Amino acid sequence: MTYCVGLKLRDGLVMISDTRTNAGIDHISCFRKLHLFGEPGERALAIASSGNLSITQSVISLVTEGMPDPDTGQKRTLNNVPSMFKAAQLIGEAVREVYRTDGPSLEMHQAAFDVALLLGGQIKGRRMRLFMIYSAGNFIEATGDTPYLQIGETKYGKPILDRAVTFETDLYEGLKLGLLSMDSTMRSNLAVGLPLDIMVLRINAYQPELVHRIHAGDSYFEELSKRWSEALRASHQAIAQPPYKGIAGAAYTSPENKSKPAKKRHDDVVKTAAKRVGPKPRRK
Amino acid sequence: MTYCVGLKLRDGLVMISDTRTNAGIDHISCFRKLHLFGEPGERALAIASSGNLSITQSVISLVTEGMPDPDTGQKRTLNNVPSMFKAAQLIGEAVREVYRTDGPSLEMHQAAFDVALLLGGQIKGRRMRLFMIYSAGNFIEATGDTPYLQIGETKYGKPILDRAVTFETDLYEGLKLGLLSMDSTMRSNLAVGLPLDIMVLRINAYQPELVHRIHAGDSYFEELSKRWSEALRASHQAIAQPPYKGIAGAAYTSPENKSKPAKKRHDDVVKTAAKRVGPKPRRK
Repeated sequence: MTYCVGLKLRDGLVMISDTRTNAGIDHISCFRKLHLFGEPGERALAIASSGNLSITQSVISLVTEGMPDPDTGQKRTLNNVPSMFKAAQLIGEAVREVYRTDGPSLEMHQAAFDVALLLGGQIKGRRMRLFMIYSAGNFIEATGDTPYLQIGETKYGKPILDRAVTFETDLYEGLKLGLLSMDSTMRSNLAVGLPLDIMVLRINAYQPELVHRIHAGDSYFEELSKRWSEALRASHQAIAQPPYKGIAGAAYTSPENKSKPAKKRHDDVVKTAAKRVGPKPRRK
Repeated sequence: MTYCVGLKLRDGLVMISDTRTNAGIDHISCFRKLHLFGEPGERALAIASSGNLSITQSVISLVTEGMPDPDTGQKRTLNNVPSMFKAAQLIGEAVREVYRTDGPSLEMHQAAFDVALLLGGQIKGRRMRLFMIYSAGNFIEATGDTPYLQIGETKYGKPILDRAVTFETDLYEGLKLGLLSMDSTMRSNLAVGLPLDIMVLRINAYQPELVHRIHAGDSYFEELSKRWSEALRASHQAIAQPPYKGIAGAAYTSPENKSKPAKKRHDDVVKTAAKRVGPKPRRK
């Protein structure tokens, strides 16, 4: 598994990824999933990847070595595409190329063609953008309304982002919130683990101002995790106890209705239920 | 979708479930998923259910109407089984019975046989127990090490439980934490929604002391959600900014290595990668 998150904030971009890969719980390794591209002062791009490692590595190779332009034959790489949109298209194209070569064989071995990538960055004279590219090579973009995108094991770390991150969030506050989101994920899922790769790219800088790997035992990260746990405890303790009292149970098979025949009691239990909707199941 | 959580704490049991069901995003309904059984002073049991609604309703019907004992022919219901373990077995048997009758048809319609149930409660003279019953009719039990069990959309609400709930947690503090876990889930997933059904059963009481439905607009629940958001914001703001500085990027294709041939640069980018592990994909 993997967890990567990208935040596109007013002041710039934050990208964070873990480094744990696993082929079964007994086959865990450390692989870089945050890849940086560009030329300082001209362009800075970062890709975070999740899914099948053979696919993501092939995609990274293709966009690094370059893919020929079908019209001009010129090699297009992340270091020469003219815009972030073209960069996202190039990655989408690379995903489709890997699907063309590896997809059928993977499917023959019951392995899903599973890949998702975040692409963030800025090219001189253009605006900063953050995209998420799917297995089909299509992509979406982060906006002011939803300034963050996640790939991999996204659910554990989503509540803190949903509550705290806005487009106006300060760049390093965003990094901190991303690290809290990552910490929540790592506590709940062993398949996401240290070290973490982080990158901060300020708007109109065209080179990252921070590229760092947080290893196990990092004192700030340990303190962050500890202080967050303490703060959560203090926070929930400070909220008043639930005021609800007594019993009001529509589905309670109490002695009061013992005299009813079994069928009637059963009807009470499921009395809110309606007719079954054909063979298509309602999902709870 | 559904989210239900059960906490078996030193002082008793808390069970919470939402009531939203959906068959597609345009077919959303409200169904009770928390079902109570028992006789005050003698036994109190509760089932929370998730998965295919037609399956869970059939299971509830079977354990309410009773299933014949293969040896004696006597009808076994949740109101007459002698122990919580037997109650869990009875539910497992009901799940297998529904699989026998509905499973093949569901599979012919590409609908998975998807069901999970929580069973909590206490029978006079026996200890309080909390079980989770799976689609195969097998089950596990909450313990002092892991005092809570979840079914349905479990991930968004797990971090708060992982950090804050222990076996020693006070009963109403547990209810509050369960509601926070539910609130986190509802904010991140529209398929989980109000109203909520809650139950508190104190140990050796053999009847719930609280059975309540929390509707939209409930002032305590709204306040809980608001105060929790405020507290999270204050908490992350109180943590120091990340101290990391500068650039240390193994995978950065900067001008320094522009002179290297493309193949070499690519090797730098993926230099932490090892050989591909046969056709079985490594998962990130």
